Amino acid sequence: MWKFKTPGIPDEEFKRAEKVPITKEEVRVIQISKARLKPGQIVYDIGCGSGSVSIEAALQIESLGKVFAIDYDKNAIELTKKNIEKFDVPNISVIYGNAKEKILDPEEADAIFIGGTGRDTKEIVELSENKLKVGGRIVIGTILIETLYSVLQVLDKLQFESIDITQVTISKSRKTSTGTMMLARNPVTIISATKI
Amino acid sequence: MWKFKTPGIPDEEFKRAEKVPITKEEVRVIQISKARLKPGQIVYDIGCGSGSVSIEAALQIESLGKVFAIDYDKNAIELTKKNIEKFDVPNISVIYGNAKEKILDPEEADAIFIGGTGRDTKEIVELSENKLKVGGRIVIGTILIETLYSVLQVLDKLQFESIDITQVTISKSRKTSTGTMMLARNPVTIISATKI
Repeated sequence: MWKFKTPGIPDEEFKRAEKVPITKEEVRVIQISKARLKPGQIVYDIGCGSGSVSIEAALQIESLGKVFAIDYDKNAIELTKKNIEKFDVPNISVIYGNAKEKILDPEEADAIFIGGTGRDTKEIVELSENKLKVGGRIVIGTILIETLYSVLQVLDKLQFESIDITQVTISKSRKTSTGTMMLARNPVTIISATKI
Repeated sequence: MWKFKTPGIPDEEFKRAEKVPITKEEVRVIQISKARLKPGQIVYDIGCGSGSVSIEAALQIESLGKVFAIDYDKNAIELTKKNIEKFDVPNISVIYGNAKEKILDPEEADAIFIGGTGRDTKEIVELSENKLKVGGRIVIGTILIETLYSVLQVLDKLQFESIDITQVTISKSRKTSTGTMMLARNPVTIISATKI
């Protein structure tokens, strides 16, 4: 259970599994903010990983809204289910399979998160454009230069406006025997835009 | 008016004034998330500047909660008032004066934001400890090495736990005549902790 209204559940509160990535707290709250959520909305989380973005989105859209969490990795699906149970957030449907097929089924979305889709990101962005309502938001998180480049190419050609690219680099403190050092994390790039 | 539940009002939505700083969107949402807000809470925003943190906090704590926005710069006070009017958020009291005195008046706080307090930060952190409820959160944003150092020194001595230091470096895209470049912003360090 997360008893606060603000997003930003600490990373250590989530159950973890080997080789299943988690969108870290600070990057996650920026992604959630870029989606501009409100109660009752429909959200997809493509490449849901540990389910952290799905859970934070589900809390924002409340019980009248619905999150569709999709992943092609069975470990991610299992982990997302465990985290849904842990945080007691019932308004998430977990869908196992290829996002390029599974994205076709749910009702139209108010917001679509895309993360960790590897080489298919361009196609998934194109499919997302079809599934987004007018005014809907797309939020893509990537660590790959190739994904950033291909997303930029495709976003310009599709019906999107207010394209924003934000690169986020986080460092966190760690106590050493003699003081406090900052430990750098890898930069993450968040691309967001509005469907017109 | 901000019609979404998620924090992260775009910077360009706020009224601005010369020499009055604004906590930028991405840093602001991380600060708001570190405060762990919920409806009905009491929040102080010390060094409120443009009022952007006060307004986002006020939206999270809803009409049953209250934000006390303090600044010693008259331009900041005027600008905060203008932004409160623009976003139609009535649950903020704007207080002009020295935070070291003005912090003594309001009821005990669930969360205290400290930003832009210059040389007085150490004293204001000590006063904040007195004004925070047990379990309350302190969130300090700084660009100064000296402030970071002195806050760390004082937090260790006071009744705080779960001390987190997060340095955030944001780059934003800009179109050039030949492509898209990333423009770096200065790193901001966010220190947060829980009063025990």
